[in-house]
Amino acid sequence: MDYLKKLSINMKRFEKNLFDLAKIGRNEHGGIDRAFGSSEDKSARAWLKDYWTDMGIDVRMDEMANLWGELEGTEELAKIAMGSHHDAVPNGGMYDGPLGVLMATEIAQTLIDHHITLRHPLSLVSFTGEEPNEFNISTIGSKAVSGKLTVEKLRNTVSVKDGRPFAQAMSALGGDIEKLENVKIDKGEYAAFLECHIEQGKRLEKRDLSCAAVNCITGIYREIIRVTGEANHAGTTLMQDRKDALTASAEYILGIEKILKNMNDEEVTGTIGCISMLPNSANIIPETVEMMLDLRISNFEKKKTFLQCVSDLQTRIEESRGVKITRTINLDQPHTVMDEQVVKAIQDAIVQAGQPEITLVSMAGHDAANMASVTRSGMIFVQSVNGKSHCAEEFTKISDIEVTANAMLKAILLLDERLDRETKPKTMKGD
Amino acid sequence: MDYLKKLSINMKRFEKNLFDLAKIGRNEHGGIDRAFGSSEDKSARAWLKDYWTDMGIDVRMDEMANLWGELEGTEELAKIAMGSHHDAVPNGGMYDGPLGVLMATEIAQTLIDHHITLRHPLSLVSFTGEEPNEFNISTIGSKAVSGKLTVEKLRNTVSVKDGRPFAQAMSALGGDIEKLENVKIDKGEYAAFLECHIEQGKRLEKRDLSCAAVNCITGIYREIIRVTGEANHAGTTLMQDRKDALTASAEYILGIEKILKNMNDEEVTGTIGCISMLPNSANIIPETVEMMLDLRISNFEKKKTFLQCVSDLQTRIEESRGVKITRTINLDQPHTVMDEQVVKAIQDAIVQAGQPEITLVSMAGHDAANMASVTRSGMIFVQSVNGKSHCAEEFTKISDIEVTANAMLKAILLLDERLDRETKPKTMKGD
Repeated sequence: MDYLKKLSINMKRFEKNLFDLAKIGRNEHGGIDRAFGSSEDKSARAWLKDYWTDMGIDVRMDEMANLWGELEGTEELAKIAMGSHHDAVPNGGMYDGPLGVLMATEIAQTLIDHHITLRHPLSLVSFTGEEPNEFNISTIGSKAVSGKLTVEKLRNTVSVKDGRPFAQAMSALGGDIEKLENVKIDKGEYAAFLECHIEQGKRLEKRDLSCAAVNCITGIYREIIRVTGEANHAGTTLMQDRKDALTASAEYILGIEKILKNMNDEEVTGTIGCISMLPNSANIIPETVEMMLDLRISNFEKKKTFLQCVSDLQTRIEESRGVKITRTINLDQPHTVMDEQVVKAIQDAIVQAGQPEITLVSMAGHDAANMASVTRSGMIFVQSVNGKSHCAEEFTKISDIEVTANAMLKAILLLDERLDRETKPKTMKGD
Repeated sequence: MDYLKKLSINMKRFEKNLFDLAKIGRNEHGGIDRAFGSSEDKSARAWLKDYWTDMGIDVRMDEMANLWGELEGTEELAKIAMGSHHDAVPNGGMYDGPLGVLMATEIAQTLIDHHITLRHPLSLVSFTGEEPNEFNISTIGSKAVSGKLTVEKLRNTVSVKDGRPFAQAMSALGGDIEKLENVKIDKGEYAAFLECHIEQGKRLEKRDLSCAAVNCITGIYREIIRVTGEANHAGTTLMQDRKDALTASAEYILGIEKILKNMNDEEVTGTIGCISMLPNSANIIPETVEMMLDLRISNFEKKKTFLQCVSDLQTRIEESRGVKITRTINLDQPHTVMDEQVVKAIQDAIVQAGQPEITLVSMAGHDAANMASVTRSGMIFVQSVNGKSHCAEEFTKISDIEVTANAMLKAILLLDERLDRETKPKTMKGD
């Protein structure tokens, strides 16, 4: 095993692949247009298929257009999978998704170069449609393989942009929604899934670290807040006689911000990202305002405290301003705990690379969260410069990518060594 | 003149007319639908034309569909006009507009009943399209007669709802935009214009008064405020690293409200009635917010102070939140001072009716503001219950209407007596 410790990836080759794949969908603003179902999505999949095939890997695309590459193992064991996705938000960056797919590719290529065959069969995967898209389903591929979609839902899904059926977009990529059942992963089929992703935040940058293990993927809680006041003439209604839904909403927005800042927790965020108002006329006092709050939190006690503070805020505003505030839960997705053994392997690998053993909560959703319901799932985050993502300015330094890729290679080797010695794979779904 | 002091209007007849005219456009919610250019607008005009004709009045409709009724005077003098408008906002009330037209009608009818002929010829008028409408021109008729419109502008005006040309709507009412020049009032043609209107606010109700003279019609100042922050991931961006355009806007909205409340002036109001946001997506931190501020103020010093406070607020928010705020003037319409002699006549008449001699600033625009550029112009406000207007709940008590109509009758008699003894009519445009 000693020579394995000295094994390292080929950063020049990896870098060339990153920039080659980034040519597909590069627009005039420097961003990447490669949304689910687009011709660029199809081209990127074809590029990967050709690349993996040239590496001597067995490539197959499943009926949801997930691309899989497989290397045999020396033992009859469940597979270890690694990968991410290759689609992008409109005018997105070149790292979000492809970095994880190409890191898995580079690790496989390094093993092939050195004629190393793992005990476990090794799978590469690029999942279909991870990003928000015109069909309003994200992490399509990993939801499909982990049994979180139904044919009925997909049959009824159409593009919010042009009404095109989801089935048509999937079939343009070579998939077939009617065969959704075929793509489901059997429990026990995989021993583990590892995903590398850019952090998309500033925690690693602030600590001057290249990478860290993810111990949990955040819960997402969304509320629709409706503030109802009283429409009235903007000129003739005295300031003290108003029930202005917008000034009440402004107090609510600042109140939420204050509660969150007081919590002073890097792993709690809250955002009001949507607002609409009626009648929205220059000379009429606002009657109703509707807003959407997005809360990212992974601790039930903290969530309870937050919601209690919001209730108190609501009561104060209703009483002082004579408005009515209703709050409706729109989404209440629990956090997903990453598998302990996978986290440990990543941490051990990171420590070997000379970095401290910290863990981070992922504040965004990822394919790894879906995979956690069918196998041991884990993630490694690599530093994002300035925390930027989903934009052309998204950037990660090659030096950080190299440290992370070598750590991920080590983690795969450690898992291959440690797993399936005594225990059987089991489900690790966050509570 | 003594018998004139005892002269009074017939409230039963006036009330019947109010409710008869309110049948035109009454909808299932109890509101009035009688927007400019609608069939109800046409029907209301026809109703008035028939009613005035039956009274023995000479009726004519000008080329902008303003309806005029004329009674001869005993002397060769400029005319005294009174009236308002008969159109309504969608689902509006039955008093805003028609009350002033029917009060003028009742005053004329009272004079006819008592065989009283004034020194001045007396004109009744119901102006076309006073309210905001689908063509985005309000006070159409009074703008036209006072020379504030051009044929070019009207030729290029279309409905924002369905693209129908303004010319077509006008011609459906029997008007002709190509003949706009014909409707212009010559200076010297009118000795005075008086309009009664509901207050649409609570100042009279708070003072338990039926009516008051208006001394000024408010200036309206509108600014478009654009707050630019930075779009970013709602989950992965730490609370302290955000440049959230919405939280910054919330601070701005509350700041404006605080400045206005500190001014503590019944005749200053400010409203942010429009808001829009980009990208307006649940999981993205708001990048830009655009808002419209509507300020009603009639004192240049106070306006200057307000704007200085807003500039200070802007700087504070830009510095503390790292956002950029730009403000663009959208409208800067000065206030219009009402004619001193007309205000005095109304006040004298109100005092005779046993009420105190207060004056109010009109916080909404009215036809009387346009008329002020071509003749002596004045207004009398009647109490609005609960300050409501532009809605089905708009209500004014019959007892207040009666007091006001009698005061307005007296004011007309006083003006007929006082005007054109020595001086010639002159222009009284607010500065």
